[in-house]
Amino acid sequence: MFNKVVIFGVGLIGGSFARGLKQAGAVRHVVGIDRSAGSAERALELGIVDEVGTGPEAVADADLVLLATPVAQTGHILASLLPHLGPQTIVTDAGSTKTDVAAAARAALGDRVAQFVPGHPIAGRETNGPDAAIADLYQGKKFVVTPLAENRADDVERVGRAWQACGALVHRLTPEEHDKVFAAVSHLPHLLAYALVDDIANKPHADMLFQYAASGFRDFTRIAGSSPEMWRDISLANQSALLAELEAYMTQLTTLRARLAAGDGAGLEAVYGNAQRARRQWIEAIEAAEAPPPDTAE
Amino acid sequence: MFNKVVIFGVGLIGGSFARGLKQAGAVRHVVGIDRSAGSAERALELGIVDEVGTGPEAVADADLVLLATPVAQTGHILASLLPHLGPQTIVTDAGSTKTDVAAAARAALGDRVAQFVPGHPIAGRETNGPDAAIADLYQGKKFVVTPLAENRADDVERVGRAWQACGALVHRLTPEEHDKVFAAVSHLPHLLAYALVDDIANKPHADMLFQYAASGFRDFTRIAGSSPEMWRDISLANQSALLAELEAYMTQLTTLRARLAAGDGAGLEAVYGNAQRARRQWIEAIEAAEAPPPDTAE
Repeated sequence: MFNKVVIFGVGLIGGSFARGLKQAGAVRHVVGIDRSAGSAERALELGIVDEVGTGPEAVADADLVLLATPVAQTGHILASLLPHLGPQTIVTDAGSTKTDVAAAARAALGDRVAQFVPGHPIAGRETNGPDAAIADLYQGKKFVVTPLAENRADDVERVGRAWQACGALVHRLTPEEHDKVFAAVSHLPHLLAYALVDDIANKPHADMLFQYAASGFRDFTRIAGSSPEMWRDISLANQSALLAELEAYMTQLTTLRARLAAGDGAGLEAVYGNAQRARRQWIEAIEAAEAPPPDTAE
Repeated sequence: MFNKVVIFGVGLIGGSFARGLKQAGAVRHVVGIDRSAGSAERALELGIVDEVGTGPEAVADADLVLLATPVAQTGHILASLLPHLGPQTIVTDAGSTKTDVAAAARAALGDRVAQFVPGHPIAGRETNGPDAAIADLYQGKKFVVTPLAENRADDVERVGRAWQACGALVHRLTPEEHDKVFAAVSHLPHLLAYALVDDIANKPHADMLFQYAASGFRDFTRIAGSSPEMWRDISLANQSALLAELEAYMTQLTTLRARLAAGDGAGLEAVYGNAQRARRQWIEAIEAAEAPPPDTAE
């Protein structure tokens, strides 16, 4: 049970965390702070938070502070709350990149950095803001905690328990592992989807092309509907891992281009077939993990 | 009204065409022919066809013949039915590529090629075979007719009316236009999705990567669950248009790589933002087209 939780950013991510903790009866009092006064008031009105905080002094007697704000603001917010940070307070975040967040935390908190336990909940919806926040957003989803060498084991445990209360499954990676993994399975696909839609939109016959785009194109490009500012920041924050993945992918495309130009059907089919098999195994593994255990299925 | 329709390939595409015509009361008798005797019998059992044809002589007194078979078989099937083709019979197809089909038809049918009207219904499902066939698969979807210079206007009309009876909206492109359009909005995305999944599956830490892949990755790669053989054939059949699109896309990635390496946030955001806007406009246009007309909405 947390006595007081302070959340910076009461939109989808922060608001759903508050709702999840409340639904689990895991928090007594939630204070919300948001750049947008309207969002903070709306979160209060919706019962997501119990109080609107006016500044970083709100963290003074908190058990837990969550930064659910754009990653680029992490250092600035941490620096602002440092003077008010009590020795018992743990600070965590929900950013999509972790090595930059760890570096920002070290720079901002100095010898208090042990109190900052970085993390990343792997969940989202297509909508944003306090009205999009739901108690079960994290139910069955992964929360990746990426502890710093300085963190106390108890504090890492405690952050994990908060997300578990929201229904999440806690995984642990180093910040560097985290950023390599998400460069491959999230950041690169976003860049590729944006690149394709922009490529098509810039062609002289773009209207005709879009007219014939169907459901496969719609799914393939769904992530290109995401916030350009947020994905610019993620791309830059994870620059080196994303560059490495992009280069590996371009090498792969160079191979496929050569096979296509040579009319090498077997060579194309080898790639297509391997991809189809790997994807099917992945989907089967997801479905097996999501199926109710046999004992409770009755 | 068609008196007799013969369908080669009674799976999802051919079977749904038969069901759509029957539901509209637009056909008296449907004959199904399939490489797989099991599929043909199953289509009969399900009432998709009224008769299982045993060979190309079944086309003798047909009004309309649909080839719903892999594109690579088009020439062979057309050659086999030529000796039995009456002067009143129109033949059409449902292949995903059209210039190769047009060339195969000219080679196989010679001076009877005017009787072949190529086309492509833009519809699909994730399942296949006669059991997947449904009467409303084409409802509200596009059917692209790609007439040959040799075709009679009446015959082109007649093929269009058959698909309209299934609920489709008839569009007209030349075979070359068709292949350029679908290289951009369908064939290239398939190649890109296969390439990404194969790239990840071949990494030493593939299991770890797939473990953290989430819904964005799932949507982005959904088309990599498609048949590798079919997409190998489509890639080769539309080789030159697909190569041109792939090269334009690789140029786009080269630009993005340079911007990422230079830490050029504004340059990345320009591409991401343009893509997001273009996609939003496209989705809005689709939704407007799919909304019921105001007069019928009460």
